Amino acid sequence: MKMKSFSKMATAFLKKTVAQRVPILQWGRSYDSRKLVCDTIAGITVGLTVMPQALAYATLAGLEPQYGLYSAFVGCFVYVIFGTCKDITIGPTALMSLMTYQQVMGRNTDYAILLCFLSGVVQILMAILHLGVLIDFISIPVTVGFTSATSVIIAASQLKSLLGLQISSSGFLDTIQKVVQNINKTRYTDCMLGILCILVLMMLRKLKNVKLNAKDEKPTARQKHWNTIFWLIGTSRNALVVMICSAMVYFYEASGLTSPFLLTGTVRPGLPSFQLPPFHTVLNNQTVPFTEMVSELGTSVILVPVIAVLGNVAIAKAFASGAIIDASQELFTLSMCNVIGSFFSSMPITGSFSRSAVNHASGVQTPAGGIFTSILVLLALGFLTPCFAYIPKASLGAVIISAVIFMIEYEVVKPMWRSSKKDLVSTFATFFFCLLIGVEYGILVGVAINIVFLLYPSVRPTVFVETATTSSGLEYLMITPGNSLYFPAVDFIKTSVGKAGVSSNHLPVVIDCRFILGADFTAAKGISALIDEFSIRKQPLYFFNTREDVVSVFQGVLDEDFKYFKTIEQLEIALKDNEFDDSNNETGKLLYDSEAEYCTNMWRKSSAELREICNGEGNNLNHRLNTQQR
Amino acid sequence: MKMKSFSKMATAFLKKTVAQRVPILQWGRSYDSRKLVCDTIAGITVGLTVMPQALAYATLAGLEPQYGLYSAFVGCFVYVIFGTCKDITIGPTALMSLMTYQQVMGRNTDYAILLCFLSGVVQILMAILHLGVLIDFISIPVTVGFTSATSVIIAASQLKSLLGLQISSSGFLDTIQKVVQNINKTRYTDCMLGILCILVLMMLRKLKNVKLNAKDEKPTARQKHWNTIFWLIGTSRNALVVMICSAMVYFYEASGLTSPFLLTGTVRPGLPSFQLPPFHTVLNNQTVPFTEMVSELGTSVILVPVIAVLGNVAIAKAFASGAIIDASQELFTLSMCNVIGSFFSSMPITGSFSRSAVNHASGVQTPAGGIFTSILVLLALGFLTPCFAYIPKASLGAVIISAVIFMIEYEVVKPMWRSSKKDLVSTFATFFFCLLIGVEYGILVGVAINIVFLLYPSVRPTVFVETATTSSGLEYLMITPGNSLYFPAVDFIKTSVGKAGVSSNHLPVVIDCRFILGADFTAAKGISALIDEFSIRKQPLYFFNTREDVVSVFQGVLDEDFKYFKTIEQLEIALKDNEFDDSNNETGKLLYDSEAEYCTNMWRKSSAELREICNGEGNNLNHRLNTQQR
Repeated sequence: MKMKSFSKMATAFLKKTVAQRVPILQWGRSYDSRKLVCDTIAGITVGLTVMPQALAYATLAGLEPQYGLYSAFVGCFVYVIFGTCKDITIGPTALMSLMTYQQVMGRNTDYAILLCFLSGVVQILMAILHLGVLIDFISIPVTVGFTSATSVIIAASQLKSLLGLQISSSGFLDTIQKVVQNINKTRYTDCMLGILCILVLMMLRKLKNVKLNAKDEKPTARQKHWNTIFWLIGTSRNALVVMICSAMVYFYEASGLTSPFLLTGTVRPGLPSFQLPPFHTVLNNQTVPFTEMVSELGTSVILVPVIAVLGNVAIAKAFASGAIIDASQELFTLSMCNVIGSFFSSMPITGSFSRSAVNHASGVQTPAGGIFTSILVLLALGFLTPCFAYIPKASLGAVIISAVIFMIEYEVVKPMWRSSKKDLVSTFATFFFCLLIGVEYGILVGVAINIVFLLYPSVRPTVFVETATTSSGLEYLMITPGNSLYFPAVDFIKTSVGKAGVSSNHLPVVIDCRFILGADFTAAKGISALIDEFSIRKQPLYFFNTREDVVSVFQGVLDEDFKYFKTIEQLEIALKDNEFDDSNNETGKLLYDSEAEYCTNMWRKSSAELREICNGEGNNLNHRLNTQQR
Repeated sequence: MKMKSFSKMATAFLKKTVAQRVPILQWGRSYDSRKLVCDTIAGITVGLTVMPQALAYATLAGLEPQYGLYSAFVGCFVYVIFGTCKDITIGPTALMSLMTYQQVMGRNTDYAILLCFLSGVVQILMAILHLGVLIDFISIPVTVGFTSATSVIIAASQLKSLLGLQISSSGFLDTIQKVVQNINKTRYTDCMLGILCILVLMMLRKLKNVKLNAKDEKPTARQKHWNTIFWLIGTSRNALVVMICSAMVYFYEASGLTSPFLLTGTVRPGLPSFQLPPFHTVLNNQTVPFTEMVSELGTSVILVPVIAVLGNVAIAKAFASGAIIDASQELFTLSMCNVIGSFFSSMPITGSFSRSAVNHASGVQTPAGGIFTSILVLLALGFLTPCFAYIPKASLGAVIISAVIFMIEYEVVKPMWRSSKKDLVSTFATFFFCLLIGVEYGILVGVAINIVFLLYPSVRPTVFVETATTSSGLEYLMITPGNSLYFPAVDFIKTSVGKAGVSSNHLPVVIDCRFILGADFTAAKGISALIDEFSIRKQPLYFFNTREDVVSVFQGVLDEDFKYFKTIEQLEIALKDNEFDDSNNETGKLLYDSEAEYCTNMWRKSSAELREICNGEGNNLNHRLNTQQR
């Protein structure tokens, strides 16, 4: 009986977890033909986009072209099953390629594949340790800066194919420089085709939103029909343009002439073999064991996966736009993509911004689009390579450019300026650092700046000081720290309160703790130091509105009770019978001054000895102080 | 006339700055013979301590012994002029030596000296950029862990000389291991001497606080006299013990026998030459230019100075105990020590914990103690080397051990447990990481943990949800976020409020913003998303107690006015005439649902297109929503 209920619970829990970890089980239910059409179109378009990118990025990573395609199909396929964001397509990216290149350089492909495997493992660990919280540290300003910069970089990288320049470059500045240097080598045929494609794509893009009926009136059947057709054409514009261009080239060459455009060229056919990632390799006729390989990969074993996650997360946020992302699920998915990918000799992969943009712009409805991308890539590897040989590079450049230029979010600057100007700092810092020192460091710089802004209030909180008067006409100083009291602020608060207390020529001081929502040991020590300082100065110090949990923190380090007041009435009563009023007789003063001197001397001693003395004469001193006050 | 007043201001300002930057001008005024005595004793004691340490640390750093002494005298001297904390003595430390060794290894001395110079430069930059705020990030828990760990490490490092073992080791674990391995090689003469010294030092230490008169009665002239003598002996105990031991050895050897103890041995005489730090060097008959040297030093150019500052700051905090330290002044001083030091072929230097402890325990009164230390070191380099040759290593080990063991702050654990338990985590983490992976990383780990704790409330703030009732008996949901609203918390708050709103089956929701002291662009976006979400759900959402500055941040991204209530009365009125009450007719509902569907679809689109639509049908939609509500 109990057993049964337990098993029931277990199954329920299992179901829940599976449903959460395998989103396809949810969106799969409501899958219909309409979505299928959209996904197919999008999937194929992305497939057409990923092909030359994969080849290019593989070369960029210092690997043979086909490794790009190997990396391209696994990610998409895995993401279909585990992915949560319909737009994201996982695969080789310029960023990952660049970071892989650093590791492969002078070594062999095995390092790239092992790096892919290890990235996946590290990401799984991140998922297990719930480091998905990282996602929360990428603010919108940083996302905006990152996405805009990435768009600019990608657009720039496509300038080459648009101008028909045959140059290899890495990074934004390098590309720009090389393009400018070789501008005279521009192939006008490619350039014209590219620009033409862009114009056509722009027009088709507008066509997507064209409606024959006026806004407020219902469309007739005929209008509806045309609206749909327009939408279809507009959405599949990328695929259309690419196909038309290739067809043109095909017939052109069929008629015996050589293509006036640079073409993608043939892809070496054949599927990758399914095998364990290389845990040892042979370099210059010497066997390199696993440990050595890992140590050679060094920090990139951590940096690559983290950057992959950061990038992926930023993209997810950009497309989810307001909707909340299941960070740990995205993390888990990405790790799966890399681990499984490494069994198909993939290099490290993550969400591709440009392809996700294409995927989104092609009107993808569910992650299922990835299936068609993968299939297309596999077919390409198997049979289709001859066909894709005819794709002009310029037209693909056009597709990518006209996809990403809309991701440069210049419009966000104005509301940001109105809302919170300091966020502009992180945006522009992220943007420019992405362009200048690379996307991975750019985003880190942005996050770092954000965290500094985040920490600032806890380091230098506002301390509001005002002179108040009780109903019975007693003047006192009301000091309100504008933040919780943690270690970085303690010295600052202590000094501020101390100074305010002194400069008020010994008015009673009331610290309003309404905004002190938390405190730590350092704070408690600071407060007890403050209490001593005031009692030595014979200046009354009261605490007001202190939260219970904060009180318990303070109490922990104090010898006598921490006195505070909850209501203004209690406070006013306390202010009326000022504890120090009766200690103005000479002897008292004298005694005090000597004590004060004694205390301050003590105070200067090292904490260890100070404790000694406090336990010795210290308590005795407190005792005398107390009796004195009664 | 104006000119005059200006020049007056200028001079006044100059005076102020100088007085602040050159503390000796302040404490120098009140300098008297009593202080002189104390400082002389302390300075000489420290001088006697630093000598063998310097030699040991130089060897540890892979340099010739005398470089340790070169590094020892400049720091003390400079600190006298610019230093703020009487106890700190700047010079070679085990930590700096270890870090220098990494850079010198396989190269030459020039790298150590250049590193010293560059550390100074980086520290000056830190001072200029006001990075002295770093000091605030070392909490008491971390300081406690750091100081305790350092004490343990130093004590352990002295075990060797105490047992008369002739082994070289680096780091805590290595030392312990080596000592255990060689325990059978213990020289009992040294061991006995060492233990004897420790016992004597302990007794003399107690003697310092012995008073012949009872606590409450005034001492007679004779008692006073003896009290002073006791205090003097107690304070100069280190010097005494060391001198007596050396004298013993001297006479022993004078009578023709060889010392039964290991001795410090002779120091190579001669002062360092004053010259520019090496901006290029010759390595394997090849000239290495400055740039290449720097690139070879790599990250340590940043790490070494920062760690030096962190260490120095931690020590300063430990000794200032409660008093506030002028961080930027300490930073400036340290940089001066390193820059000037590099002109005397010094290796990177910072505050030495063990020597500062000795200095403090020897009852130093002002930084002037440093003068005597430097002079002693210089004399040692010049003439005194023969005398110091007789110091038994064991007695110096005893001095250091009996100085540092009182710095292991086990007593602080109890109040910390009472006050704030999570602080114990940072303390113990710091302590153990300092022991296991080295002091520099240990302290960084501690600070990192502290910062994580510090960030937590801004990432996962408390969200207090309660069902309240207005005076007119209307039920509503009162949600109070327990922290300011910055980017890491936005998604979390949004989800929490959303869920609470839904699960309350459509009660009106009031967000009490009393604790939202600040917000950023991401927060504003989140709030506007929340407002849309609720308006789509037709669930009223009100804001209460919002601060003006926060309102302006929110307003920045909103199309219509951000509505909020300052008093509970206003709120109750708003709750009474619920804006959505009149929209319960079917058509309205239908219209709404379609709208809702439409909105959520929109919501899923990429931010770029979302903006497009918002400017197009979006506004129109808002318009319709508003008309609907009227």
